[in-house]
Amino acid sequence: MTIDELQDLVTEFSRRRDWERFHTPKNLVMALSGEVGELTELFQWLNPEQSQALCDDEQDRVKVEHEVADVLIYLLRLAEVLDIDLGAAVQAKLLVNEERYPVELSRGRAAKYSELG
Amino acid sequence: MTIDELQDLVTEFSRRRDWERFHTPKNLVMALSGEVGELTELFQWLNPEQSQALCDDEQDRVKVEHEVADVLIYLLRLAEVLDIDLGAAVQAKLLVNEERYPVELSRGRAAKYSELG
Amino acid sequence: MTIDELQDLVTEFSRRRDWERFHTPKNLVMALSGEVGELTELFQWLNPEQSQALCDDEQDRVKVEHEVADVLIYLLRLAEVLDIDLGAAVQAKLLVNEERYPVELSRGRAAKYSELG
Amino acid sequence: MTIDELQDLVTEFSRRRDWERFHTPKNLVMALSGEVGELTELFQWLNPEQSQALCDDEQDRVKVEHEVADVLIYLLRLAEVLDIDLGAAVQAKLLVNEERYPVELSRGRAAKYSELG
Repeated sequence: MTIDELQDLVTEFSRRRDWERFHTPKNLVMALSGEVGELTELFQWLNPEQSQALCDDEQDRVKVEHEVADVLIYLLRLAEVLDIDLGAAVQAKLLVNEERYPVELSRGRAAKYSELG
Repeated sequence: MTIDELQDLVTEFSRRRDWERFHTPKNLVMALSGEVGELTELFQWLNPEQSQALCDDEQDRVKVEHEVADVLIYLLRLAEVLDIDLGAAVQAKLLVNEERYPVELSRGRAAKYSELG
Repeated sequence: MTIDELQDLVTEFSRRRDWERFHTPKNLVMALSGEVGELTELFQWLNPEQSQALCDDEQDRVKVEHEVADVLIYLLRLAEVLDIDLGAAVQAKLLVNEERYPVELSRGRAAKYSELG
Repeated sequence: MTIDELQDLVTEFSRRRDWERFHTPKNLVMALSGEVGELTELFQWLNPEQSQALCDDEQDRVKVEHEVADVLIYLLRLAEVLDIDLGAAVQAKLLVNEERYPVELSRGRAAKYSELG
């Protein structure tokens, strides 16, 4: 499935409800943030191993999938109203990251924590 | 561009740096949350109109695109490690939302705020 | 009421439930983040004026107060387990900010957005 | 140190910079969320033990204290503009939580994850 197709589904859903009036970039960033908060709550008390096993339980998997979907839905809406091509944006950012985190220097080091000198 | 293709690019980027060891679901949820925080900071002091115009400035557009990309990158990684099909997850969630927010009752009402009775 | 007194109430609440075992700094940061997400959801669709008026409604005020309290509760717990003196930390940070945002240069300018300098 | 004293320091800091015009509740919630994002980034790649040891390093401790302080600063501002008494709000919420999570049923169980039936 392409990103464009997914984005059209989401935009159509909003349009039919006349929700576009609420979808300023600022509001959508907050909605995105709220959904990430809900996703966070599913994982907050789990240790690393439990977080890896959470989706083995079918009920928990559905919860996680719903929250992950909500995050993507608002991200698709945000990209739509800001006229951002998500595929191109990711590719452009990966190029930036290639320069910032050269393979040889970055291997096995958590980038954000132990910033590369 | 398909979601799968994008996901492969992102996974390959991590694999070459041996970063998969850090990518537990719990850690990725936090990384996603941190990136949404950076996106939030770009919009926090703007009024609705300013938020709509932010990307008219080319430098600001690049900043926003980079943060939006970072959010999607970690969401793609999270879906990968949890074996979630993002396209299917969004479609499934839209079906749930169709039931939860019928067009006739939801039109022009911000769903989360004025919860439908 | 002092911060210490408030912190003692919160710690005692956790201790009696034997929840301290879950309260690693990492988990508490996530819990804090989740609660900020819930607070965000109360404000996400509001325009500036509506956000200012939200607490005029008594039911909405209680909701906001509960979410604000949840945020502070986890912040107090986090400070406790990291042995951070919150009052001293705020005072120290305000000194840093005094240097970073001199009154004359910062007046009426949103600091994070239009970075000084 | 009392919460009121701390709040006065923070409000005075904003007032002298004429930043109150930016401090709508909506904007402050976003600023709070952005700061929690920065705090999250300090912990995102750490395992539980590393998260507990982070502040043993003096440089890391200062970073954490600054981010924790930023979170509290915006929370104090938000409470100020919404006229919320933080001490009273926490005490009221703890009473709600006492009912929601009775000691006998909650002991040793992560509340949000394994919801009490």
